[in-house]
Amino acid sequence: MGESFGIYKIGLDEQIMPYIDMANLACGFHASDPVTMHQSIRSAKEHGVAIGAHPSYPDLVGFGRREMVCSSEEIVAFVLYQLGALEVLCQSYGVKVRYVKPHGALYNTMMQDAEVFKAIAKAIAKYSTSIKLMILSSTKNSEYEQIANRYGIELLYEVFADRAYSDEGFLVSRKEHGAVIHDHSEVLKRAKLLFEEGVIETVSGKKLSLKVDTICVHGDNESALAFIKSLYELKNDYSNRLR
Amino acid sequence: MGESFGIYKIGLDEQIMPYIDMANLACGFHASDPVTMHQSIRSAKEHGVAIGAHPSYPDLVGFGRREMVCSSEEIVAFVLYQLGALEVLCQSYGVKVRYVKPHGALYNTMMQDAEVFKAIAKAIAKYSTSIKLMILSSTKNSEYEQIANRYGIELLYEVFADRAYSDEGFLVSRKEHGAVIHDHSEVLKRAKLLFEEGVIETVSGKKLSLKVDTICVHGDNESALAFIKSLYELKNDYSNRLR
Amino acid sequence: MGESFGIYKIGLDEQIMPYIDMANLACGFHASDPVTMHQSIRSAKEHGVAIGAHPSYPDLVGFGRREMVCSSEEIVAFVLYQLGALEVLCQSYGVKVRYVKPHGALYNTMMQDAEVFKAIAKAIAKYSTSIKLMILSSTKNSEYEQIANRYGIELLYEVFADRAYSDEGFLVSRKEHGAVIHDHSEVLKRAKLLFEEGVIETVSGKKLSLKVDTICVHGDNESALAFIKSLYELKNDYSNRLR
Amino acid sequence: MGESFGIYKIGLDEQIMPYIDMANLACGFHASDPVTMHQSIRSAKEHGVAIGAHPSYPDLVGFGRREMVCSSEEIVAFVLYQLGALEVLCQSYGVKVRYVKPHGALYNTMMQDAEVFKAIAKAIAKYSTSIKLMILSSTKNSEYEQIANRYGIELLYEVFADRAYSDEGFLVSRKEHGAVIHDHSEVLKRAKLLFEEGVIETVSGKKLSLKVDTICVHGDNESALAFIKSLYELKNDYSNRLR
Repeated sequence: MGESFGIYKIGLDEQIMPYIDMANLACGFHASDPVTMHQSIRSAKEHGVAIGAHPSYPDLVGFGRREMVCSSEEIVAFVLYQLGALEVLCQSYGVKVRYVKPHGALYNTMMQDAEVFKAIAKAIAKYSTSIKLMILSSTKNSEYEQIANRYGIELLYEVFADRAYSDEGFLVSRKEHGAVIHDHSEVLKRAKLLFEEGVIETVSGKKLSLKVDTICVHGDNESALAFIKSLYELKNDYSNRLR
Repeated sequence: MGESFGIYKIGLDEQIMPYIDMANLACGFHASDPVTMHQSIRSAKEHGVAIGAHPSYPDLVGFGRREMVCSSEEIVAFVLYQLGALEVLCQSYGVKVRYVKPHGALYNTMMQDAEVFKAIAKAIAKYSTSIKLMILSSTKNSEYEQIANRYGIELLYEVFADRAYSDEGFLVSRKEHGAVIHDHSEVLKRAKLLFEEGVIETVSGKKLSLKVDTICVHGDNESALAFIKSLYELKNDYSNRLR
Repeated sequence: MGESFGIYKIGLDEQIMPYIDMANLACGFHASDPVTMHQSIRSAKEHGVAIGAHPSYPDLVGFGRREMVCSSEEIVAFVLYQLGALEVLCQSYGVKVRYVKPHGALYNTMMQDAEVFKAIAKAIAKYSTSIKLMILSSTKNSEYEQIANRYGIELLYEVFADRAYSDEGFLVSRKEHGAVIHDHSEVLKRAKLLFEEGVIETVSGKKLSLKVDTICVHGDNESALAFIKSLYELKNDYSNRLR
Repeated sequence: MGESFGIYKIGLDEQIMPYIDMANLACGFHASDPVTMHQSIRSAKEHGVAIGAHPSYPDLVGFGRREMVCSSEEIVAFVLYQLGALEVLCQSYGVKVRYVKPHGALYNTMMQDAEVFKAIAKAIAKYSTSIKLMILSSTKNSEYEQIANRYGIELLYEVFADRAYSDEGFLVSRKEHGAVIHDHSEVLKRAKLLFEEGVIETVSGKKLSLKVDTICVHGDNESALAFIKSLYELKNDYSNRLR
């Protein structure tokens, strides 16, 4: 969220804030700008939403979706710079950054390249071990946990209710048919399964147990808003706070 | 200082660090980048140099020297963003930003436009009233002090030993002949006068009393380095810490 | 037009193209990017719309609306760079840039500061005297024409049908009440008067004769689209090509 | 060359221009800015040096040395944008861009990924088939030539006199020992061999025949300047114009 830039407005941030527990806020490298960050923080604070930094490669025109080959030293510096800008803006409103969720290509690379994951963990740990790192929950969780432990930071696991999972517990590539589940009721059914049993149904129908701290939703279209509201009601039904 | 950018290296930072008490570090808007900021912080820490944030208008190609018309809200956000990026990088090295000195056009505008001064003071105060704001010492100091008091922040006054002053206590414009004093011994004489009597000699020969917390020097040429060393010795002679 | 940037989409370009004669296309300094420029050129070509370069100060986050103090040498270089990028993209589609209309703050400054106007005229003339420069039609037209003649370029005069004019023939500042005329039928009445008699009615009711080569409309909202269609019909009625 | 940016100056452009035949000029994406481009063009024109566009990925802070994953459509647009900016600046001085040599990571990717090579060739061809594309001469020249022919453009082959070549005709990676030859006289010997016999000696001592239209030298250090002068004399001895 908070991915507007200058006069360019995207996302239904104001409408979505009341229904979520955590918001990943862009920090100016793939989207957002200092004024937009202020507004996003104010809005998150108003709705009691926990703020996460959403750092990216420096790629505004590509919205941080382009893989860029960066050294570990660069990634540490990029993450701390963006985390810092957001953190001090947050502190000026009396709130704090609670976690980091890398954006776009940096997120994908972090899940594939342990060196990048380590650089991000190291950056966070250098500043504060009370800030968590959000990653994609998969069958490799324990490997990531070992690295995080080494740096003294905690992980948050996110699961996608609207994405197909392979039997190995990974996201089916967006290039494959059926990778994204568009049917509203189907997605809610999957979210319910996550709440009740902590499992996701894979493409072969197998039930896979996945750690889940948060369910990721995108805030950029009308249907997302409807879905978020349903999820919010579901959560309340279960009196099962995600945070 | 810390005004290199990517592969572009400027300044004699490494050579100058041993001889100064305070370093204004660029924050990525007119110069520097996250990796350069890391290196500058590490070097300042090593030499026990106090770190100040050197925020600017967002104008990399113009090195922040171009006046840009920005709203107060924008200036607050720009300053906090840059201060934040530097502060968290500093904290990751166990040090802290001690003061803010705006750069280039933002500095000049701050000294001419009270609204811009207020926006900068407000930004600092929103984050921490223990961070000081460095301004140009002049005969208008008390006006600025009143505003700073209102925001609960302290000011640091800087004087230029190598610039001519008018009888009214302002810098003679660089466009006028004799505005910059190049003669090494003359500049040292002026610095001595500042140490001993707290006065600067104006263009008409009048002695003007000016508050002085720090003497500004630029770190970008060989002659600057020689001058800084002389100033360092002078300071030691007087056992008169500037900080 | 063509003011989208990366994933950020603004403007109703596709819907508006069929109803206009000339499109000012952003060139990457305040908006747009190389891929967006391609798409805009393709669309303009398809609808037989004449393409103008819409160069700006380098200020993406401020959308080129912030006045920036630049030297004449910088303005010449900025204009040629942006004109060049658009021109060669145009030529790769077999079309050409026909005119230059500076954007935002650069446009406003050009109308107030003869040095900036001269720098822009000089930039165009250095490349091609068959490219015209679009300016705001006012009672100062002859002064601008003299300068343009000196550089050997032609001017295009634009009039705003939806803005109030002073008796001196200048736009009433947006800060004043009634500066922008929102009533659709009133705006059309003014456009009709421009077509038929070449005059605009000033705030005092005086009829002021103004050279008019083109009527400026903004393409960024639904009401603009309706207005553009009405204007298009009006123009067809008069069989009075604006180009 | 022309890789300064704003106040940041790099390269010995002025000193090197008298001794070269072709200069690759940066176009603002990895280095340079509109004002620097003007100055570089003026200098190249003065010394009768042929100008080539040196386009890059959009990565100023990384100096275009970071591989970025871009689509063919993006690469076509990036190349035309940069080529265009330089071409129109050139035309305003009465000269023209003669060839394109991609910079840094874009150059490396072009030599490894045929899709990227095709995108660059297509971009050039869309604008003008009289502009050549400079590539690394290797044993794969004929493959590249076939693609270039399809787009109707010509290739220029460059060889590095100061880099070690494998028996297969590729550059030895900079990571390996001996990849860069620093011995001045050794490099001149290799250049002589290229002039006289059109061959390069590989790491195993094998003589490999390589098409050579130009010998690449970097213009960023004192030793480069000395080497360029020697090469210039060598060339004059052979009365063997490279252009």
